Amino acid sequence: MTQRRRKRNKPDRKRSSFHSIPWQQLVNPYAPLEVCTAEQVEQIHAATLDILENIGIDFMDAEALSIWEKAGAKVDHKSQHVWIDRGLLMELVGKAPAKFRLRGRNPARDMIIGGNHINFLPGGGFAFISDLDSGKRNGTREDFANLLKLIQMSNVMHGTGVALIEMMDVPVSHRHLQRALLNLTLSDKPTTGAAHDRIIPQDILNMARITFGDAALDNPVDPVIVGIVNVNSPLRFDERMLGGLLSYARAGQALIMTPFIVAGAMSPITIAGAVAQQNAEVLAGTALAQLVRPQTPVLYGPFSTNADMRSGSPAFGTPEGGWVSVIAAQMARYYGMPSRGNGGLTNANSNDAQSAYEALWTLWPTVMAHSNYIMHGAGWLETGLTISFEKLMLDMENLAMFQHFLKGVEVNPDTLAVDMMAEVGPGGHHFGTPHTQARFSNAFYEPFISSRLSMENWVAQGAPDSAQRANTLWKQLLKEYEAPPIDSNVKQALEEYVAKRERELENVDLYY
Amino acid sequence: MTQRRRKRNKPDRKRSSFHSIPWQQLVNPYAPLEVCTAEQVEQIHAATLDILENIGIDFMDAEALSIWEKAGAKVDHKSQHVWIDRGLLMELVGKAPAKFRLRGRNPARDMIIGGNHINFLPGGGFAFISDLDSGKRNGTREDFANLLKLIQMSNVMHGTGVALIEMMDVPVSHRHLQRALLNLTLSDKPTTGAAHDRIIPQDILNMARITFGDAALDNPVDPVIVGIVNVNSPLRFDERMLGGLLSYARAGQALIMTPFIVAGAMSPITIAGAVAQQNAEVLAGTALAQLVRPQTPVLYGPFSTNADMRSGSPAFGTPEGGWVSVIAAQMARYYGMPSRGNGGLTNANSNDAQSAYEALWTLWPTVMAHSNYIMHGAGWLETGLTISFEKLMLDMENLAMFQHFLKGVEVNPDTLAVDMMAEVGPGGHHFGTPHTQARFSNAFYEPFISSRLSMENWVAQGAPDSAQRANTLWKQLLKEYEAPPIDSNVKQALEEYVAKRERELENVDLYY
Repeated sequence: MTQRRRKRNKPDRKRSSFHSIPWQQLVNPYAPLEVCTAEQVEQIHAATLDILENIGIDFMDAEALSIWEKAGAKVDHKSQHVWIDRGLLMELVGKAPAKFRLRGRNPARDMIIGGNHINFLPGGGFAFISDLDSGKRNGTREDFANLLKLIQMSNVMHGTGVALIEMMDVPVSHRHLQRALLNLTLSDKPTTGAAHDRIIPQDILNMARITFGDAALDNPVDPVIVGIVNVNSPLRFDERMLGGLLSYARAGQALIMTPFIVAGAMSPITIAGAVAQQNAEVLAGTALAQLVRPQTPVLYGPFSTNADMRSGSPAFGTPEGGWVSVIAAQMARYYGMPSRGNGGLTNANSNDAQSAYEALWTLWPTVMAHSNYIMHGAGWLETGLTISFEKLMLDMENLAMFQHFLKGVEVNPDTLAVDMMAEVGPGGHHFGTPHTQARFSNAFYEPFISSRLSMENWVAQGAPDSAQRANTLWKQLLKEYEAPPIDSNVKQALEEYVAKRERELENVDLYY
Repeated sequence: MTQRRRKRNKPDRKRSSFHSIPWQQLVNPYAPLEVCTAEQVEQIHAATLDILENIGIDFMDAEALSIWEKAGAKVDHKSQHVWIDRGLLMELVGKAPAKFRLRGRNPARDMIIGGNHINFLPGGGFAFISDLDSGKRNGTREDFANLLKLIQMSNVMHGTGVALIEMMDVPVSHRHLQRALLNLTLSDKPTTGAAHDRIIPQDILNMARITFGDAALDNPVDPVIVGIVNVNSPLRFDERMLGGLLSYARAGQALIMTPFIVAGAMSPITIAGAVAQQNAEVLAGTALAQLVRPQTPVLYGPFSTNADMRSGSPAFGTPEGGWVSVIAAQMARYYGMPSRGNGGLTNANSNDAQSAYEALWTLWPTVMAHSNYIMHGAGWLETGLTISFEKLMLDMENLAMFQHFLKGVEVNPDTLAVDMMAEVGPGGHHFGTPHTQARFSNAFYEPFISSRLSMENWVAQGAPDSAQRANTLWKQLLKEYEAPPIDSNVKQALEEYVAKRERELENVDLYY
């Protein structure tokens, strides 16, 4: 009996240590950080109107061009170029909702996206995976599943993201199916859809239909998928991304408009120029989505930073990247749109001090700017080439700290506790007071990786640095994972759909 | 000739890499981060008045008690206890200036303290020193000098701080003399004075008199020393600290009122209680300084955080510590006082990811809260027991990033560069444009430790992590140090004063 209880308690205690912060719909109660003055925001807006009216923007897809033409925009079909006048643009942008609900398989995990709400998402789009035991390597389906399990278990991850890691042991044309299957079965949190061309989004929509029912797509109230539309900056949407944009918008699902601008390469080198161009790109995509289906939820979602001028490669966790994040959230608020932010970015190749400070140079501005949907919140390493199991844990620690920090401080006679100060008196100590004892166990944020051991005790334990402690933790957590409940008919239908489509796509050259 | 020029050029180039950010009087142009509402600030203020009127506070010094008595406060000489009524308190606090200038030996390095100005100071008060080559060890006079040289060379260090490292090869009663001598000769930046008892401050004041002339002390316009007065929380000023307070205030020098509260140990466990008590302690010390000399500049300067409830030791770089920093700056603004903040704190025992994220969990709230004088900005490791040469460099990188981030963004037709977007067109690239080329070399913050090497190139260089790169840098920088100019008569007079006082204090049992 005692034996059994002890056995049961151990993993529970572990899990509760990881989850000292409960899952919550997170709200930033503080005033948003703003880098631009109201006048500067107007200047950026004015430049944007100028860009879309006079320079114009490429939409490399016949259907998109005909939609623009029908709406009254000036279209050149040969160059696939569209000029959008300010009246049409602003009328359409005004239709995008300021706030929406993204449904998860578990309704208790629905995300509110907009206003002062904040949601943290994992990193995505990685070519490689690494951990301290086996180093950097290609990823597998098992790796994808393991990452997903850790994300499901973490109360600071509000959704699953999409392409955590390339599954190199799965044929390219099957990967989107396996990703969606794992996302929808190993986790019950809201998910993200790849917006590549028309085949992949259609599969994702079909699997959403199986999972959430037809009403989620035919006559949706709240979306169940958010698709990421990357812009080919400068000023170009390609056919692949437009396929995703049109497919998801038509099905009433949400979109994230994501220019990836490296200032000095895909835009002018000046930050003002970069954010003006980015603004033009986001607004043009948002407007098209509204033409497809008015009230399509769109996140203002850039992923922009400066170039390293020695190598030309993107630099992450920089002061300039901080400015761009904050200004993006400001512009989103100006247009009444929810915004995507980015957290945890770094150029570092290992989980060293640089990896941590660059991650926080991304996260602090984004959170303080009130970005609503913070992607790449955990796991990102090596300029985004690699997802690291240890970085995943280290970033989650910081996200948990934010979750605590954003609760704010309670001020009332009980928390001011002047009576206790009188009782303890000058020079006394508060450890033993009833006021302290009653709050002892949960007064403060309790870290699950950070160590507060003295040097002596830490050395006695083998002097594990934070990455090594993270390594111990994720392996322990994987042992404790339990799949969230799922209707067995839904699960079977998803598996059957995937099996059928895998056969059909066997010889299709699907890229993304 | 060529040979000589090459030799001269090399260190210059190195130094300019460290100093890609020029020295500047730093201002935070963004709105301050606030954690408390205006109503909560009023609640904390009201609790403070209650504490000082009804609980009272210890001043364990006969002279301080008689000053309070003369001012009309209720004093109990036996228990060394003072009750301060709200009218008297607020009248005195109102006399402390909102802003002042702290003079350096080099007038170009004077600090403005108050308003939206920010100044970064190094860490202080460390018992041990460490570097990657020789590990953790006792410090020496040479270590102190080396740290000071690096601080003097860094454009993100606005002052020298005070007790960088204990000089274990110097007798205890001589250390304050050697510290002041090194601060005043190896650096020309403003300095900090130890406020321990009456003998040490008097020596510091005498050395300031030699350096800055009698007018800096007898009839001062701007102070040349800022002395740190630690409060023995809860609610107690001891004789040692009051000696410093009275000595510096009388000489027209500035003070920092520094409760060191670990919430749950030296104050109620609740953050509201901790900040209310801290507020009472700061205001009581500020009021006494105004009684000694009206208009004495005082910084609202707490150093408070939460306890780790497992060990009872202070926890650094926590969400709670962030709240306390932000609220301290809010309360300082409420009273029209400049504020001290703290940056770079951590419980980590090595320069790992934890050391970096905890440092930034301290620095971001402090900078965003508009703290004016940020101590412990660089070097702090191991819960404050150790100063690390590598951490010094890593922290300076982050301070330099802040210095850049706080410049803000320029928005005008030239930086919006819509004409360049038209010229490059959709799908083009901006690397080669005249707009990019003209700004190429200094458009972005250039790091001096952060690496943006690809994994391959980084591994080819031996895969040095950021701490190892910091190690290379500080050793290189020490070779390049050049002492700032000093009047040889002043230098000789300082050395003679120190030699004389060392003889006089040979057998004095001076502690601090």
